[in-house]
Amino acid sequence: MIVILKPEASEDLVKDIVSQIEGLGLQAHLSRGQFRTVIGVVGEEVKVDAEHLKAINGVEQVVAIMKPYKLASREFHKDDTVIEIGCPAGGTVKVGGGNCMAIAGPCACEDEAMVHQLAREVRAAGATVLRGGAYKPRTSPYSFQGHGEDALKWLRDAGRENNMPVITEVMDTRHVSIIEKYTDVFQIGARNMQNFNLLFEVGKTRKPVVLKRGLAGSIGEWLMSAEYVLSQGNRQVILCERGIKTFETSLRYTLDVSAVPVVKSLSHLPIIVDPSHAAGDRQFVPSLARAAIAAGADGVMIECHDCPGKALCDGPQALLPETFSQLMKELAAIAGVLGKKFTTTPAVKGSPVAV
Amino acid sequence: MIVILKPEASEDLVKDIVSQIEGLGLQAHLSRGQFRTVIGVVGEEVKVDAEHLKAINGVEQVVAIMKPYKLASREFHKDDTVIEIGCPAGGTVKVGGGNCMAIAGPCACEDEAMVHQLAREVRAAGATVLRGGAYKPRTSPYSFQGHGEDALKWLRDAGRENNMPVITEVMDTRHVSIIEKYTDVFQIGARNMQNFNLLFEVGKTRKPVVLKRGLAGSIGEWLMSAEYVLSQGNRQVILCERGIKTFETSLRYTLDVSAVPVVKSLSHLPIIVDPSHAAGDRQFVPSLARAAIAAGADGVMIECHDCPGKALCDGPQALLPETFSQLMKELAAIAGVLGKKFTTTPAVKGSPVAV
Amino acid sequence: MIVILKPEASEDLVKDIVSQIEGLGLQAHLSRGQFRTVIGVVGEEVKVDAEHLKAINGVEQVVAIMKPYKLASREFHKDDTVIEIGCPAGGTVKVGGGNCMAIAGPCACEDEAMVHQLAREVRAAGATVLRGGAYKPRTSPYSFQGHGEDALKWLRDAGRENNMPVITEVMDTRHVSIIEKYTDVFQIGARNMQNFNLLFEVGKTRKPVVLKRGLAGSIGEWLMSAEYVLSQGNRQVILCERGIKTFETSLRYTLDVSAVPVVKSLSHLPIIVDPSHAAGDRQFVPSLARAAIAAGADGVMIECHDCPGKALCDGPQALLPETFSQLMKELAAIAGVLGKKFTTTPAVKGSPVAV
Amino acid sequence: MIVILKPEASEDLVKDIVSQIEGLGLQAHLSRGQFRTVIGVVGEEVKVDAEHLKAINGVEQVVAIMKPYKLASREFHKDDTVIEIGCPAGGTVKVGGGNCMAIAGPCACEDEAMVHQLAREVRAAGATVLRGGAYKPRTSPYSFQGHGEDALKWLRDAGRENNMPVITEVMDTRHVSIIEKYTDVFQIGARNMQNFNLLFEVGKTRKPVVLKRGLAGSIGEWLMSAEYVLSQGNRQVILCERGIKTFETSLRYTLDVSAVPVVKSLSHLPIIVDPSHAAGDRQFVPSLARAAIAAGADGVMIECHDCPGKALCDGPQALLPETFSQLMKELAAIAGVLGKKFTTTPAVKGSPVAV
Repeated sequence: MIVILKPEASEDLVKDIVSQIEGLGLQAHLSRGQFRTVIGVVGEEVKVDAEHLKAINGVEQVVAIMKPYKLASREFHKDDTVIEIGCPAGGTVKVGGGNCMAIAGPCACEDEAMVHQLAREVRAAGATVLRGGAYKPRTSPYSFQGHGEDALKWLRDAGRENNMPVITEVMDTRHVSIIEKYTDVFQIGARNMQNFNLLFEVGKTRKPVVLKRGLAGSIGEWLMSAEYVLSQGNRQVILCERGIKTFETSLRYTLDVSAVPVVKSLSHLPIIVDPSHAAGDRQFVPSLARAAIAAGADGVMIECHDCPGKALCDGPQALLPETFSQLMKELAAIAGVLGKKFTTTPAVKGSPVAV
Repeated sequence: MIVILKPEASEDLVKDIVSQIEGLGLQAHLSRGQFRTVIGVVGEEVKVDAEHLKAINGVEQVVAIMKPYKLASREFHKDDTVIEIGCPAGGTVKVGGGNCMAIAGPCACEDEAMVHQLAREVRAAGATVLRGGAYKPRTSPYSFQGHGEDALKWLRDAGRENNMPVITEVMDTRHVSIIEKYTDVFQIGARNMQNFNLLFEVGKTRKPVVLKRGLAGSIGEWLMSAEYVLSQGNRQVILCERGIKTFETSLRYTLDVSAVPVVKSLSHLPIIVDPSHAAGDRQFVPSLARAAIAAGADGVMIECHDCPGKALCDGPQALLPETFSQLMKELAAIAGVLGKKFTTTPAVKGSPVAV
Repeated sequence: MIVILKPEASEDLVKDIVSQIEGLGLQAHLSRGQFRTVIGVVGEEVKVDAEHLKAINGVEQVVAIMKPYKLASREFHKDDTVIEIGCPAGGTVKVGGGNCMAIAGPCACEDEAMVHQLAREVRAAGATVLRGGAYKPRTSPYSFQGHGEDALKWLRDAGRENNMPVITEVMDTRHVSIIEKYTDVFQIGARNMQNFNLLFEVGKTRKPVVLKRGLAGSIGEWLMSAEYVLSQGNRQVILCERGIKTFETSLRYTLDVSAVPVVKSLSHLPIIVDPSHAAGDRQFVPSLARAAIAAGADGVMIECHDCPGKALCDGPQALLPETFSQLMKELAAIAGVLGKKFTTTPAVKGSPVAV
Repeated sequence: MIVILKPEASEDLVKDIVSQIEGLGLQAHLSRGQFRTVIGVVGEEVKVDAEHLKAINGVEQVVAIMKPYKLASREFHKDDTVIEIGCPAGGTVKVGGGNCMAIAGPCACEDEAMVHQLAREVRAAGATVLRGGAYKPRTSPYSFQGHGEDALKWLRDAGRENNMPVITEVMDTRHVSIIEKYTDVFQIGARNMQNFNLLFEVGKTRKPVVLKRGLAGSIGEWLMSAEYVLSQGNRQVILCERGIKTFETSLRYTLDVSAVPVVKSLSHLPIIVDPSHAAGDRQFVPSLARAAIAAGADGVMIECHDCPGKALCDGPQALLPETFSQLMKELAAIAGVLGKKFTTTPAVKGSPVAV
């Protein structure tokens, strides 16, 4: 950490800050310039509170050298983390370190039949994990809010039938235990990226967590949110970029594809991309999905529906299963250019979806 | 609602959409242009799901005419809502409709003495409501997270001593009842603007709610979040602008002062401004507070601390009580230019803070 | 300047950078931390090219301590610059250092009569400087592009009749000399904030320049653009905040009112605000103008029109002269709260506008 | 165009607007809803000025149905435009419609030898067009501003030696003719996307124009800027996405990769991507370049340098030629997945760079 003082900072201030730093068992290196004094902090930076120093009159700027997240950082863990997601019929699927994953399924679990139907279709197309909403975050209190526990059951059963792990969004600390009972992966939605209590709660479980980036979440803040989960002992965090808010309104959000290589440089955690929510319009989903894999993402999360015009939510962005199937072929080819491959779960014996 | 079809939209599609609209008891007006067909929906727009229509192939654009929020809209409620906040010694303070309010106090309740000390100071300077954090949303899991119920008690007692209503942030649905027990106003923080379950829970109480705008919250989305609270029967929502994320990084966030008149044109709810979190740096707080009142805000929320360099959180933005006192004089004068005034609670008899 | 090396940076790299720094006549202070080496540069930072150092493999971060602009900085010039604008009948009006100014007039000079009519009206309401567009930057090539030199003549004559200095926008290096001939102040529009050749050209004149902030211009970049003008010897730069592009679309742009105090802390130059272009909608102009003055701005620039529904450009944002007149009273009162006042030019003897 | 009136709009206003519309030879369709009247305009929308209608009291909203750009729109020109760039030794290279192009070279032409050296290297790696700056837009007036006409000569000669068309940026209307003399393609930089006079001037030439997107340019505004060039008869516009300003600061700008498919849906013009300026850091350039091609871009523009640590500008983002060469192989493979290919110019007989 480097503390830059204002030109008018007094000698007493310098002494005071130095003694605060030394009081923490760290060393302070002074560098007196022509215009300003700069104090370098040597030692474990995490012991010093940058905000605390910034609050002192006479301090102009405090520059962190170490990242404020530790467990999530590549400095702490040099190799890519490979996360293993348990499958209903046993075994695991891997994500990260050369293994790509496709999560697919409906936005919301609308009824039992549709979940089963879509599960078969997306699995046949190459999806690894089945998604489906049970508790839906909706902008309007008057919109459909999800079928709750019923939806969780449909999802679990469809996962079992196809040997696909299942994922659903958790929005409330009170729902963590019920969702944990039915599903294999927690999803934290963009609007909850900084719902810190929720992060602590999923951090206390031992199931993988897909952590979406908030619409205004900087990459640093996002990794701090991952740190919330990791700090509770759950080391299975998969980051998911899904678009940020910018001035450009031609699509719903602006997919920040650069987040993929930037996260990979800063962190060892896998990162996937959700082009469906970023675009909000199915015609742009394939382009964005291809861009994500080409940029180095470890997978995609894509919404599908057999009849988007009838979907209870997010119909405009849902791909038809046949479009998804075609897209998966392109994604596999692009992953190949980067020396990576998409993983799938073994088909269940006697299952109608064996491919 | 207006549905604009793509140039290539078939006659069958037009018929299909018209019959969907009529099936909802609404009328469809067709306008066939040289290049496109446009369908106007006449009747209660809220019955039609715009997203549903957008999901249909052949539909280019759906334009809403009515606002998607109803209870929050000025169309629904023409006059300014005046909210009354209960005071510990009885009586109320008003916010809205010409009545301005200043909420002030420490970022976090650090210990009992400091809360009492600051309460006396901010009250003497003209603050109406006492703030103080008990559960703190922190970017880092390693930062101080608040003193919880102890802090709630200190806050309540300091409020009683000074006859000031008290406000604190609620971050978790599981904390609503305990916070309701100790405080007079709920605060929903920026990071929870779209924590929909939390909005429903405070909507079920009957205490006023200060709803901060999210860092990426559009004004429309913010009013939809207010609608969540209102829809549960709690009509006491006070909006609070506190800065949005933009490309400009000289201050922590960009205060969107235009939100004040825009909200007033769209909604009857009071709106206040938090310049402390917007700026993140005390030297800019007075300017932003003055701008807020000049723009027509119904109040401000300002963090104070007697020794910002020792604050457990957000020290850089805390005003010294004497600076706050000077600022209150300027704010009162500016409110006067607009024909408004700041309200205060009656002093408690025998209280040391009677002014 | 502080150069932070990557953990893996070699000893040779350290030596190489140190020798580069010393080769420039500066001193290098080494600070070897537990994890990284940090090199502090002592001396005139402007001699070192930060980008150059950043381009070297092994360098992680380069932190500037000095501002990259010098002539525009408050470090260089501690007191507020007061700019004097020459009036047609002699004498000057002051801007900055406690003197506020209102620039008003039509978006475009549509015909001779309207320019004269509006000049009289805005002067009577308290405007100091008359604005009017001759060369208009229009998003569409098919829109009205301005009346060119004719408009310049109308503007000059209306200024003379009312003893008001006049300002118009310059968009092309080829127009600098003709605009200099007719007007008293140059305006550089938001879209040309980084039209560096244009900045050099107006920098070579000796007339004041109102430099608008670009829609994506950070405050630092804006001050660097001011530096372009100042570096050519023209020290009369007035900055003008007029809204930035953000995700919020309820108004045309987001007025960054914080830019006012931030600029004042970094620079000695006066700063005014253009609420008309920020809002794009006349109903919000008064609120934003009041906020600007309350935040500490040295003036406002406001578009007026006698019949906005017939305006050739930007009609939706034009104030009627009577609304402008009412607003000027409020602005004067708010300026008074801050101990400042609006200046006006002396009326010309025998002029019909003497007030 | 659809005009939505305020609930309180009078019958006289309706009549007035209808008669204005009919006066332009268009038809007005009235739709009277329960709450509001809506007027649909049938005919050539471009005849009506939306802004004009918005400026009328009683009008709430004006919704355009047609795009405000015509020549740039895919409605006007259904097939992809394929642009042919002339090569020094005769013949052309194609861009668009399945033909991808790589523009590469140094940020600035620093001296004759380096331009020739890099030209040979990037051509050997597969670049089609040679770039090099002669007039440089620099944030600081004190930075290196380019070698002007000398640089143009070095660039032309290096292009001839390698049979590569050359491109350089034009920043000033006064430089159009000299740049036209030496180069094959004009580049309009991001900061000049709305330098309308400059757009008109390059529109009057008959050489292809690479038009970069401004840092705050919406896709609609960008296409309007293309319309400026097209409207002057120059139909050879190549769009170039190079990152926009957002709140995310981990890289210099945020590459809006979605712009690629969105532009392709709205316009027939080719679009390429500049990952170098978007990232500002060479370690992220390959990821972004791959994402661009995977999203469907018609090419990339990449900065290279043999010794980035010595570059006179933008060294941190320059790729070494060998990295560029490796990247080109990946880009070709990804283009192949989409059924597209990179084009190259024929080697000049006897040239040392024949590959």
